Order: sequence, then structure tokens, then C-alpha cells
Amino acid sequence: MDRIGVVDTMFARIDMGSIAESRLAGMEGFGEHFEVVRRTVPGFKDLAVAARRLIEQESCEIVIACGMPGGAELDQVCAHEAAQGIMLAQVLTGRHILEVFVHSQEEPDPAKFAELCRNRVGSHAVNAYWLLYAPEELRKRAGQGIRQGGADAGPLPR
Amino acid sequence: MDRIGVVDTMFARIDMGSIAESRLAGMEGFGEHFEVVRRTVPGFKDLAVAARRLIEQESCEIVIACGMPGGAELDQVCAHEAAQGIMLAQVLTGRHILEVFVHSQEEPDPAKFAELCRNRVGSHAVNAYWLLYAPEELRKRAGQGIRQGGADAGPLPR
Amino acid sequence: MDRIGVVDTMFARIDMGSIAESRLAGMEGFGEHFEVVRRTVPGFKDLAVAARRLIEQESCEIVIACGMPGGAELDQVCAHEAAQGIMLAQVLTGRHILEVFVHSQEEPDPAKFAELCRNRVGSHAVNAYWLLYAPEELRKRAGQGIRQGGADAGPLPR
Amino acid sequence: MDRIGVVDTMFARIDMGSIAESRLAGMEGFGEHFEVVRRTVPGFKDLAVAARRLIEQESCEIVIACGMPGGAELDQVCAHEAAQGIMLAQVLTGRHILEVFVHSQEEPDPAKFAELCRNRVGSHAVNAYWLLYAPEELRKRAGQGIRQGGADAGPLPR
Amino acid sequence: MDRIGVVDTMFARIDMGSIAESRLAGMEGFGEHFEVVRRTVPGFKDLAVAARRLIEQESCEIVIACGMPGGAELDQVCAHEAAQGIMLAQVLTGRHILEVFVHSQEEPDPAKFAELCRNRVGSHAVNAYWLLYAPEELRKRAGQGIRQGGADAGPLPR
Repeated sequence: MDRIGVVDTMFARIDMGSIAESRLAGMEGFGEHFEVVRRTVPGFKDLAVAARRLIEQESCEIVIACGMPGGAELDQVCAHEAAQGIMLAQVLTGRHILEVFVHSQEEPDPAKFAELCRNRVGSHAVNAYWLLYAPEELRKRAGQGIRQGGADAGPLPR
Repeated sequence: MDRIGVVDTMFARIDMGSIAESRLAGMEGFGEHFEVVRRTVPGFKDLAVAARRLIEQESCEIVIACGMPGGAELDQVCAHEAAQGIMLAQVLTGRHILEVFVHSQEEPDPAKFAELCRNRVGSHAVNAYWLLYAPEELRKRAGQGIRQGGADAGPLPR
Repeated sequence: MDRIGVVDTMFARIDMGSIAESRLAGMEGFGEHFEVVRRTVPGFKDLAVAARRLIEQESCEIVIACGMPGGAELDQVCAHEAAQGIMLAQVLTGRHILEVFVHSQEEPDPAKFAELCRNRVGSHAVNAYWLLYAPEELRKRAGQGIRQGGADAGPLPR
Repeated sequence: MDRIGVVDTMFARIDMGSIAESRLAGMEGFGEHFEVVRRTVPGFKDLAVAARRLIEQESCEIVIACGMPGGAELDQVCAHEAAQGIMLAQVLTGRHILEVFVHSQEEPDPAKFAELCRNRVGSHAVNAYWLLYAPEELRKRAGQGIRQGGADAGPLPR
Repeated sequence: MDRIGVVDTMFARIDMGSIAESRLAGMEGFGEHFEVVRRTVPGFKDLAVAARRLIEQESCEIVIACGMPGGAELDQVCAHEAAQGIMLAQVLTGRHILEVFVHSQEEPDPAKFAELCRNRVGSHAVNAYWLLYAPEELRKRAGQGIRQGGADAGPLPR
């Protein structure tokens, strides 16, 4: 059985990992062809190594790494370092690790922010599934201005 | 038969990968000496690992990695991370991965932006071909102020 | 017996490593299932390689790396480089290295700063313990807005 | 016979690689103890992997990597990425790769800019030679405020 | 006999490497238990690979890498790249490389600047010695606000 890794943080203010888990649980083949391995780490700087461990020690084919950076300048530098770590872990392992960050400055309204977060995590759970089992779904959306979280931008008029 | 990889994103608003594919399909030796392997990923941060996979798992000699960063400050930081990942994948694999990014702030007019995009992707498809099969074409243009997308700057007057 | 590494600096103005050590000494299993290996280096740019050495030469399962960056612009660039090194060491070794930095600009009052420092180091010592022996403690706090040092932000209202 | 690699770009507006080649051709031992291997790539982000290839596939002992970044903000970010790639390639291969960048904002006057470029490339060609064959020439200039391109700053008065 | 590496640049305006060498020559065991291997490179971007070579080809246990970045914005970006390279070389080799940079904007007065430089290089030479032969000296100064170059900040009042 394939394994999809999900890792999130105690720092985030929404249980992002559970959103990813429940979305994946609704996909075809769940429990038959693939299962989900879940981890939680303290903060987003711990995501990269946790993803590597999910790939190498837990045999995950792909990982969804969820974080919620704060809006202060120092938080943004830390988010950059966390993202660089996830990039490094991807390139070194040769496996996709989908970085799913929702930045607190993206949306001031708490209810809309929560909706943005749910949508983004859910969409990336689908993307992880497509990367593994349905690359043609990605291919047919090439250049279509697809967004995760808000409305799609759509393709530019020809 | 050699393989040239092309990877692009659902995020972009133009089907950049198809531009690269069609340009390569018009080059000498297409279908005889080389073929094209195409992938699409969600966003530009997924390009680096996809390129590595095209090189190591699909035996591509070279990869063209296409992305379209947005203009917001957060987008620019993400573009920087994506570009660093592509750089890392190149140096680690020892294979060229041509980063073909068209930044939305480069040109406000949609029609001109689309033309810029088509030209840049097409020129880099030619560059990939030259790197593999005609390095002398690159050599004879050394220091000639060649640009991809807009007009060439040309050499400085002596 | 497992080993937990603790590394701190001469540069910091509080003995951060001893805070981590004493917190770990109060955890269940100390001296029976795990022990602590302590190192001190000159400054925070020396932490990453010291952590790698603790993992590879001293067989530590996890490392707590403590630093106290100054507030000047040059200090912040150096802190960024130090943090990138710790990230790199984590991803390369596949072991968690908890970066525990207390930035001098976080709190101007010396007494409150010292309290922030003690709380953050102590909390991360607990996090290190949980990562090794009680991952379910992390899991049940996923998305709960947990902070190290100040008050928890708490989860967003549903 | 030793090999010294020279790689430059089509993007630059001066044929930097030929300046390096001709300077090396005038050094003692050229054609007897060492030869030059020349490559041209599209832009400066392609230099790092080209340098690695010159080292690993063409057996170069050292590489001179020439680029000419533009002055726009986006160009400067790209120059930073290109420089990081060259740094990475150096550290991974354990061979010197001399980064010879001439930034267009360094000198507005075209004639002076060209002279700056010629001087810098030429000086680094000599540096490459010294690193290989005459390290004592470098040693005796330690701390002498040597510059490549403009006038030397000289040592500080004691 | 152990070996300590010292590498500096022609770019610096003070012979930093000789300061390190003479300080090490006064330490106990010099010439009996350890010797110094000295290199000079063109500029600070050449330090990282030179340090790696000192470790791997010259069997140095530890390296002191000395540079003197200029104050212009471009110089600061280059200093950041040089520092990242030194960090990378440390983490990859698992050996300490003490980055000893004196930034020209730290002190405008030339005589005070020279004194700052001498003190910083000398202190780091001692730090290198302690890392190898007297880690307890570092340990007992943990959190004491030790600085290299200027006056120590001292520990925060309890």
C-alpha cells in the first residue's frame, strides 16, 4: 500500500493536517491503494526534516507540509528559511513535498482566513493525489491560472 | 533516443509547456534523435523536484522549467525560493535545467505579455537544443547581448 | 541509552544551554533512558556544524541549538545565515535540530527578556522530548496556536 | 596537460570569455602544461552547472565563470541566485570557480565599463593561474587591498 | 601532528592571516602537537572552497577563514554569499570553519578599525584552539556575552 505523508504544526491556529487527512480519506483508493501517515511538529522550521523522515523512514511517496507563518518581519524571514528547507528536502530526496503555507497577512477576516486555509489545504491534498495517481489531471490544467485557496485567475485571453 | 524534459505549472496563465513542446517539435532531429517528455505540476515551487525526476527517472538530458510568478512581494520571495531550488537541482544533477520565468510585472499589457512569454519560452527551447546539439551556436554569440523575450541588447560598441 | 544534544554560545548573554539541561533533567527517564550531551561554541554561526557533530560523532538522536542574535541589521543577516545552516544540517542528517533563537529586539525589558528566554528554551526542551518519546503530545496540539516563550495564540474560533 | 575552464554567456554585452582566453594564452606554460576549455551558455544562471560539468566531465582543475548582471532589481535577485549556484558548485566539487561578474550599475560610461570589464576578467585569469601554479604570488599579496577591475585599495596604514 | 588551517584574502586591507598565525604560534603545543597551514585567495567568495580543500586535502582539523567585506550594498550581498558558502562547507565537512569577517562599516576610524581587526582575528584564533584542545574553556563562558573584537557585552543581570 502506498503512503502519503501529512505533517503540520502546533504553531498554526487551525488543524491543517486534519483537513488534509479528511480530504485524502475521500479520494478513490483510500485504505485500499494508499494510506495516510500523520505527524505534528512544533513549528514550520521543523517541517522539512519531518518530511524527509516521512519519505525515508516511513516510505511515503509524497508529503503535504502545512504551516501558518505570522505577519511580522521576523516571521517572514523564518518562513523563507522554512520554505528553503522544504525545497532542499524535495530536491535531495527526489520526492514532491507540497509546501502549503497560509500567511496570516493574506486575509484579515478570521472567517475568510479559515475558509482560505481549508480550501488551500484541500486543493493541495488533491494535487498530491493527482501527482501520484492522475498526472493527466495536472497536464490538462497547464497554464490555466489555477489557484489554491482563492478563485482561479484563469488563463489569459488569447 | 535522447529525451528533453519540459515541465510547467497549472498556476501560469499561459500554457508555457506547449509552447516549448511545439518549438522543439520543429527542430531538426525531433522524433528521430530526440523526443520530449512533458510534465505539469501545481506551482513553480514544484518545478525543481520535477526537473530532478525528469533527469533521474525519465533519463532526460536537459530540462526546460517554465513558471509565471505573480507580482506581489510574497510571490517574489516564492519565486526566489523556486529559482534557488532549480539552481540546486542543476548543480546536484550536473545537468542544465533552463529556468524560464516570466514575471507578471515585466509587462502590464496582456497581449504584449503573452508575446513576451511565447518569445522567451521559444528562445529557451532553442537554447536547450543548442546546449545539446549545437554548442557552437552559443559560442559564436558570446557577449552579444542576446535576450530571451524582448529585443536583444546587442554588444557594447568597442 | 539515548542521547539528546544541547549546544549554545558564549555570545549569548544568558546561559541558555543550562536552562535546557535542567529542564531535560526533570523529564521522565532522564539518566535511565536518555542522557544529555552539552557543547558550547563561540557564536551562533558555529551551531549548525556543532549540531551535526553531536548527531554524527556523539550519536545524539536530536539536538537543541540555542542562540541570541543581536538587533543590528548585520546581526540579522548573520542570524539568517546561522538559521539556514541549522536547516541544512537537519535535512542532511535527517534528525531534528530545534533552533531556539531569542532575538534581542523581541523584548526591550531585561527581566522580561530573560523570562522569555527561559520559557522558550524550556518549552523547546519539552518539544525535543516529545519528538523522541511522546509524538502524541504534539499531535493533540496540532493547530492550537502553541507558542514558545510568550502566551499561546490559541486556535482560531471555528 | 592541465585544463582551465572558461565559461561565459550570450547575455553579456562583451565577449568576456575571449578576454580570459587571450590572457591565459599569454601565461607561461600555455599549450605545454595547460590548455583552456571554453564554453558559452545562455545566461548567468547557467554558469554554475556549466562550471561543474567543466570540472567533472572535462577534467578542468579550475574554472573562470563570467557574467554581466543588469541593474534592475529583478536582475540583482537573479545575480544573487547565480552567485549562490557558483558557490554551491565550488563547495561540492572542492575546486575553485572564480566568479567574475561585472554589474552594469558599477560604471555608467560605456568605454570605462568596457575597460573595467577587461581589467577584471584579465586579473581573474591571472588569479586562476596563480591558484594553480603560483600560490606564493597570492600569499605575498595577503591583506594588500588588491582589487580586480579598478585601482587597488592598498593596505591600511599601520 | 594536528593541522589548523588559516585562509585569508588579497582583497582585505590588513594581513589578517598573519595575525591568526602569530596568535596560534604563541599557544601551548605549537610546533609539537599542532602546526598551521596558510593559504591566501583573491577574495572572500574564494574562502569557502579553500577551507574545504584545507580540510580534505591538507587534513586540517579546523579552519579560520578571514575576510574584510566593503560597505557598499553590492559588497554586502557578496559577503552574504561568501558566508553562506562557509556555512555550507562546515556542514558538509562536519568540521568547524570560523568565519572571521570584519565589515568596513563597523568602525570608520582606521586605527580603531585595525585594532578591532587584530582583536577579532586573535580571539577567533584562540576559539579555534579551544574548540580543538580546551572545550571546557568555551563551556565555562556559555551565555557570558563574549564578543570578538570589541568589549564583551557580559551576561544579563539575573
